[in-house]
Amino acid sequence: MPRAWANSGVNLHVELSGGRRRVELETALREAVRSGRLPAGSRLPPTRALAADLDVARNTVAAAYAQLVAEGWFEARQGAGTWVARRAAAAAPTPRPLSGDPRPPRYDLRPGSPDLAAFPRADWLRATQRALRSAAAEAFGYPDPRGRNELRAALAGYLARARGVDATAERVIICSGFAQALAIVAGALRAHGTSRVAIESFAHPGHAAALTASGLTAVALGVDDDGARVDDIDEIDGVGAALITPAHQFPLGPTLAPQRRLAAIEWARGSGGFIIEDDYDGEFRYDRQPIGAMQALAPERVVYAGTASKSLAPGLRLGWLVVPPSLAEAALEAKRLTDGPSTLDQLTMAEFIGAGTYDRHIRRARLVYRRRRDRLVRALEHRRPDARIGGAAAGMHVVVELPRRMSEKDAVARGLERGVALEGLGEYRLGEQRRSQALVIGYGTPAEHAFSTAVARLCAVLSAD
Amino acid sequence: MPRAWANSGVNLHVELSGGRRRVELETALREAVRSGRLPAGSRLPPTRALAADLDVARNTVAAAYAQLVAEGWFEARQGAGTWVARRAAAAAPTPRPLSGDPRPPRYDLRPGSPDLAAFPRADWLRATQRALRSAAAEAFGYPDPRGRNELRAALAGYLARARGVDATAERVIICSGFAQALAIVAGALRAHGTSRVAIESFAHPGHAAALTASGLTAVALGVDDDGARVDDIDEIDGVGAALITPAHQFPLGPTLAPQRRLAAIEWARGSGGFIIEDDYDGEFRYDRQPIGAMQALAPERVVYAGTASKSLAPGLRLGWLVVPPSLAEAALEAKRLTDGPSTLDQLTMAEFIGAGTYDRHIRRARLVYRRRRDRLVRALEHRRPDARIGGAAAGMHVVVELPRRMSEKDAVARGLERGVALEGLGEYRLGEQRRSQALVIGYGTPAEHAFSTAVARLCAVLSAD
Repeated sequence: MPRAWANSGVNLHVELSGGRRRVELETALREAVRSGRLPAGSRLPPTRALAADLDVARNTVAAAYAQLVAEGWFEARQGAGTWVARRAAAAAPTPRPLSGDPRPPRYDLRPGSPDLAAFPRADWLRATQRALRSAAAEAFGYPDPRGRNELRAALAGYLARARGVDATAERVIICSGFAQALAIVAGALRAHGTSRVAIESFAHPGHAAALTASGLTAVALGVDDDGARVDDIDEIDGVGAALITPAHQFPLGPTLAPQRRLAAIEWARGSGGFIIEDDYDGEFRYDRQPIGAMQALAPERVVYAGTASKSLAPGLRLGWLVVPPSLAEAALEAKRLTDGPSTLDQLTMAEFIGAGTYDRHIRRARLVYRRRRDRLVRALEHRRPDARIGGAAAGMHVVVELPRRMSEKDAVARGLERGVALEGLGEYRLGEQRRSQALVIGYGTPAEHAFSTAVARLCAVLSAD
Repeated sequence: MPRAWANSGVNLHVELSGGRRRVELETALREAVRSGRLPAGSRLPPTRALAADLDVARNTVAAAYAQLVAEGWFEARQGAGTWVARRAAAAAPTPRPLSGDPRPPRYDLRPGSPDLAAFPRADWLRATQRALRSAAAEAFGYPDPRGRNELRAALAGYLARARGVDATAERVIICSGFAQALAIVAGALRAHGTSRVAIESFAHPGHAAALTASGLTAVALGVDDDGARVDDIDEIDGVGAALITPAHQFPLGPTLAPQRRLAAIEWARGSGGFIIEDDYDGEFRYDRQPIGAMQALAPERVVYAGTASKSLAPGLRLGWLVVPPSLAEAALEAKRLTDGPSTLDQLTMAEFIGAGTYDRHIRRARLVYRRRRDRLVRALEHRRPDARIGGAAAGMHVVVELPRRMSEKDAVARGLERGVALEGLGEYRLGEQRRSQALVIGYGTPAEHAFSTAVARLCAVLSAD
């Protein structure tokens, strides 16, 4: 029941609904100060008066006052009663309502995300249950910054088997995802004396930003149909490392050619530099078996980086590094300064891999994405037989050239009109290198039932006339 | 069955056990190059010869060679066959075995961890199940860098209710833990022009390291029985922020006195500086109700930082910030450059709070820790009636002065002999300020059944004679 009190010029409504009266009184008093209804410097009613007014014990009021003095809201002046602290009152800024993110288009053909509806919820829950059941109590403590041994061992085995990575559990560092992984590598490189890192001239813009934020300078390295032009690194001054996507260049799509792989390794060995191999979608190759990771060619020069974001779900925030011995200590130091994924997620993933569920999930997903790729490419070739389609051999995105008089901006706008989210290749351009106007089409994201419509609308967008 | 082949001077054992013969052949060939058994520059046997030798189809061998050429292990020289790439071969460094971490002492009385055996596994699994069942597919996508709205809203409500924090969901940022939270705040402060941050002269050493790694200078601020000497900040040149532990100074234990709270706010308002309130164990106060967070006194000047590491488990890697509007954008930018906790953990925690399970868990834990605190203090007072015991009113650690002629190093060594892990106060000293030799005793870590023995052994250590 609401009650009013008028004392010392202060007029307040306080609701006291039985039970924990002191706590409620304190809450009401704090709120009154915060909102300005109890102005700074005003005197509080004597405890006896307020107690009578509110029909509570005097001790309750005295205790509430003492608590608010301890918290700095009130000041007790010896023999003179209790006052609202002069320095405490500040009208809290009016909070804006939660930003209503604009409604996303119905069909999302932007690259970067797998089919989220296909996340194996039941399998994951079962793995969580097993992990929770079998974890020792210490597993809930502060984790080893390198990650849980269970997951490091499971990943070392998986990566050797599936990606040809030269990995032992002790060289694996578990991260919250690729952004964190890159920040850790950047920190390690900086500690190693590196200041400039080559990055592909078409790449995820966040990667350059992460390098810059870590105090490194990102320098663009050209990309052609054989992948990154690693043979040009020598000509760039003072580069100590190169971040590349050998299995499936992102976003353009070529595989790094064999002689380029060797040239990159040769450069790293000769100069004492490092290759950062971003193997974001290496599991997904359709027309032949996956190209093994280049890390195994020179495990002492290549930092291998993988992620569950494409193979399973970005929401898991799980990634991993396999680090050369000479960078291991610096990487661990960089990792110590931040946090990693929860132990429970790590143990769940270890169970998930160990039980073969991860491999099964990837095999299933590869089949689904290959079919989507085929449908997309067929539809595009039918609609625009002359358009170049790049990067279709792997992953879950392709690059499609736009009709001659259509700009990327036009295409994105036409997509929006049709409820399709599209992204221009220009979003990924870092250096000076120019390319024809094109879209980067991600075919992983739409749910299975929505895929045909999404492709049909894309084709409509590309029909320029 | 093992097979040998001797061709072109190369002698290899390859095991081919039916089935996926090409894959196995490739694996064997990679391994042979890696180990040096197939030296760089050596010529591979002709496909026909090797096929006959291994009793596989010639196409299988040709495909394996082609794959290894694509991966950079082999080189195909036109008309001259296939060779091990000159630049590929590098003996991988012999991996050390997984570092056998030294076995920890049986009883752990170091501070910083709650009772890990008390993690509510069944409740957490149920919350995970509910989260997995009710999550929309988009929840598995790339997360909002601020965190999931479900958890931000649940935390805003909880923090207002339990800690008196002035929070709305939109001002909450979810982090992987306090280390990441601090790195984000440091990044935001740097963007805001801050270069020097005051930090308590007794504090977690990792915090100063994290500030330094973020490009800030940490400056020591004295601590006495009223908490951090915030009234001294004015005298330190160019300090733009202060990281303090108002509810329960870590590790010394006092609560920041009311006039100090106001002085800190006044300094922040007057100078345009910020207070970072590290509320690591604010829920655990035993002899009176918890002291509310000071953030609510000046939400526009105080960054509030909380964590599930003490209230639930460090292994969850869940923390949160409530950020003043003027730092919100910079904090979000800093957050974007790293990763956060998995969406599933966030949704599970939101369920956990929403169902009242978190509150129940904390109430239960508070009771357990208060009993432990009572037992520990009684035992210490009985054994060493003259020793000063600090910080016992809250949290899960106390500071105990050592007998006159016992150094911290001695005490830690004596503990190890008795199977008890102990930590000296000196581990937390940052500045010049000196204190008597003392131990920081964490009473949260031992499992319930081990607690009495741990305390008895501690008392034996402290019996200097």
